[in-house]
Amino acid sequence: MNEARPITEAASKARLRLWLRLLKATRAIEGELRERLRAEHGSTLPRFDVLSALERNPGGLRMTALSAALRVSNGNVTGIVERLAAEGLVERRAVEGDRRAFEVRLTEAGAEAFAAMAAAHETWIDRRLAGLSPEEAEALSRRLDDVTRQGAA
Amino acid sequence: MNEARPITEAASKARLRLWLRLLKATRAIEGELRERLRAEHGSTLPRFDVLSALERNPGGLRMTALSAALRVSNGNVTGIVERLAAEGLVERRAVEGDRRAFEVRLTEAGAEAFAAMAAAHETWIDRRLAGLSPEEAEALSRRLDDVTRQGAA
Repeated sequence: MNEARPITEAASKARLRLWLRLLKATRAIEGELRERLRAEHGSTLPRFDVLSALERNPGGLRMTALSAALRVSNGNVTGIVERLAAEGLVERRAVEGDRRAFEVRLTEAGAEAFAAMAAAHETWIDRRLAGLSPEEAEALSRRLDDVTRQGAA
Repeated sequence: MNEARPITEAASKARLRLWLRLLKATRAIEGELRERLRAEHGSTLPRFDVLSALERNPGGLRMTALSAALRVSNGNVTGIVERLAAEGLVERRAVEGDRRAFEVRLTEAGAEAFAAMAAAHETWIDRRLAGLSPEEAEALSRRLDDVTRQGAA
């Protein structure tokens, strides 16, 4: 809480400008990623996010855990998983001891498809942020972490 | 283009981390704004964005220009404008010389409602980013502008 801190107009305008810049930069990069995933991999950001979450959890994830792991809440996770399964990129298995639950995990083909997309994704970001040295990128990351923690406190 | 620049793994990982931090910070702040608009103003981010675009264009905007001015492409602009009109916050007027087009603008009540939300919005952002001095906020804004321009080049 910062109730005791006087809010000066210049300071709050500078922070508001920063927020609008953050939003603009994030949307610009996300737009480029969305377009490149579509054009170069016939894929989408939600599909990429689902595959990424499964790659981080090689033992498999229940649908509820998968939904929770996604960076965007997405009511359509079920539909995405169904399509990925139809394409042979993920498989669903019953969970022992819980007849209604199932776990999703990457197939070998899914792991390969994701690895190709993830490598391309890293290259796109690397080019997009090429104006920042690694040291500058690290410094900016730390400041953004502070911003994120600030709000959580 | 940065084709000639060697991509070192450490550098691309640092930039990838920065992108993930950018995304995380933006989503965290956006989530807080969404929740506060809902709880404290009974409103939503898309409504806020529509009112904000109309406030910046006091002469009114055609629907196509309004859609273009929104920071998120939103197929539901028509529905949002209809509800705002029903609540008396915006008014629609025929465009002279084009029988099928109409312009939307804020009513006096809409301007007042938006001013209250915008002031609250600035205060929320000011508190959320209170850990950054105005000078730091300006410096970060400039770096983010560089990032955004980089991609547009």
